[in-house]
Amino acid sequence: MKAIGFKKSLPVSDPESFIEFETDKPTPLGKDILIKVEAISVNPVDYKIRQNSLKEKTQNEPKIIGWDAVGIVEEVGNEVTLFKKDDKVFYAGDITKPGSNQEYQLVDERIVGFAPKKLTPEEAAAMPLTALTAYEILFDRMGLSKEKDAGKSILIIGGAGGVGSIAIQIAKKILGLAVIATASRPETVDWCQKMGADVVINHADLIQQVHDAGFENVDFIVDFVDLNQYWDAFVTLIKPQGKIGSISDPVHPVDLRQLKGKSVSFYWELMFTRAMFQTDDMIRQHEILNIISDLLDKGIIKSTLNTIINGFFSENLRKAHQQLESGKTIGKLVLKF
Amino acid sequence: MKAIGFKKSLPVSDPESFIEFETDKPTPLGKDILIKVEAISVNPVDYKIRQNSLKEKTQNEPKIIGWDAVGIVEEVGNEVTLFKKDDKVFYAGDITKPGSNQEYQLVDERIVGFAPKKLTPEEAAAMPLTALTAYEILFDRMGLSKEKDAGKSILIIGGAGGVGSIAIQIAKKILGLAVIATASRPETVDWCQKMGADVVINHADLIQQVHDAGFENVDFIVDFVDLNQYWDAFVTLIKPQGKIGSISDPVHPVDLRQLKGKSVSFYWELMFTRAMFQTDDMIRQHEILNIISDLLDKGIIKSTLNTIINGFFSENLRKAHQQLESGKTIGKLVLKF
Repeated sequence: MKAIGFKKSLPVSDPESFIEFETDKPTPLGKDILIKVEAISVNPVDYKIRQNSLKEKTQNEPKIIGWDAVGIVEEVGNEVTLFKKDDKVFYAGDITKPGSNQEYQLVDERIVGFAPKKLTPEEAAAMPLTALTAYEILFDRMGLSKEKDAGKSILIIGGAGGVGSIAIQIAKKILGLAVIATASRPETVDWCQKMGADVVINHADLIQQVHDAGFENVDFIVDFVDLNQYWDAFVTLIKPQGKIGSISDPVHPVDLRQLKGKSVSFYWELMFTRAMFQTDDMIRQHEILNIISDLLDKGIIKSTLNTIINGFFSENLRKAHQQLESGKTIGKLVLKF
Repeated sequence: MKAIGFKKSLPVSDPESFIEFETDKPTPLGKDILIKVEAISVNPVDYKIRQNSLKEKTQNEPKIIGWDAVGIVEEVGNEVTLFKKDDKVFYAGDITKPGSNQEYQLVDERIVGFAPKKLTPEEAAAMPLTALTAYEILFDRMGLSKEKDAGKSILIIGGAGGVGSIAIQIAKKILGLAVIATASRPETVDWCQKMGADVVINHADLIQQVHDAGFENVDFIVDFVDLNQYWDAFVTLIKPQGKIGSISDPVHPVDLRQLKGKSVSFYWELMFTRAMFQTDDMIRQHEILNIISDLLDKGIIKSTLNTIINGFFSENLRKAHQQLESGKTIGKLVLKF
């Protein structure tokens, strides 16, 4: 089967930054299912790993990354109970294992969901990693619920990105929150509004803009961009007893002590934690993906797909990474096999 | 009426560090109730404020501190609905207002509870601030519940202190957690066991001792001593998706980023937040105090009172602060008027 990988970390402009190669189709054991990949999507984690994981050493066998896919179950391991051959599935995967940049991929059934029935493979492939991230941070980490939180306010930093786009929808349509999203360009402002944001503000002078939007402070903040850049504004804007969540990778430490006077809580979300540590509740990702699938099929939330690239070639994967690295991607970029 | 206060921050060895003086009995307005104080207890926050709040400037009118008391309602403000004259009450109070080191004190009814009926005033006076702190951090901040968390493990740093003593009881008896508490001296180890800790370990070499106690990691950690001292151990010991809470005042920042890989959440608790910011849910402290009162009357939890000093004199208050400043107080110290 065909796969695309890299032997060392190279700039995406380098033709060798991705290599097409042939490798054996793997065999599923235990809880693993073998999936014939139909479409994948690209996330910032992809280029971070491509840029950094093989900086010091070179690998003989190319490293296969990619953590978002839709596909068809080809074969199942002997302990599999959730899926059977020919099921249509979607999943993000496990960062400690080879990713979805290959024609056939093994994934633990507990982190795989049934693909939405009414969406195209491209529309479905756009969703797993970002929807899992948004769902986990809002529900599993911050513990929000419509029952107790509807009507409260949330500030979403990076509203037009992959996670931001689905987080706006979940915050608005599932939780009933008042959503303030940040976006800086006319096209990202438009996109955030399409996703359902009540107010879209600029990244610059956050405090003033939140105030101008009619909010003295906010109940919740989720940061999908950079904690360092916005920390001081968060300290000012968060309501006493409020909650701040983040998925970002701040270069510098932040001063957590500044949140004590208001008894504020802070929540990290890393979508890979469950699979990486093989937590007892790993199957929760199967459940969340099924919930997302259902919400998509019912039209309550919509796919955040924005760009499609056709053809599983190294050149196309380079294009996709190049686009992501620009930091200007709106919604999701999908590569169709 | 008599009150005790200080005009400048002085070492507790200085006879002027507390001054007895006469002042007018205040009149309750709005939601305030006037309480005839019967007994107070002393907390670390008291000496921190005494040591630091009037270091730079001297006040003409002595500053009255103290945030723990039991007493009898003498008079109520025009908007009071929860209490009437002669009700027996207990409360911690509001750090932005004069404290309980006076014969009569005004407190907003929303942060006052009915005193337990079956306890002595001294036993009751020991409880409000620490019970509110422990209850708020475990329930309102970390969101723990018996239904979903019974059987999980919690590491309590500083088990024999005021907050630790009641936190052990709530964690064990109300939440059904496996409680690992830290204590360093034979008498504090004994005390933690009396409070209900399943395992008591030494502060030194925390990781090894938690492992030796049969726990590879813990679901929850609450720090009542010093975040700086234990942070690295917390990073290692906390379970993926675990929760860490703290009430301490670390001198140095901690590196929050170390918790990201495990998607760990962090919770600050400051018992004064609700009153200080006049939050919409301020009345929650009235409710919590009533729950605590009921649990005490039913014998499900017991007073953490350990030492009584008789007589509302400046010398006795100095003795109380001296004892607290030693950092060796076990349970609570109460001063009876």
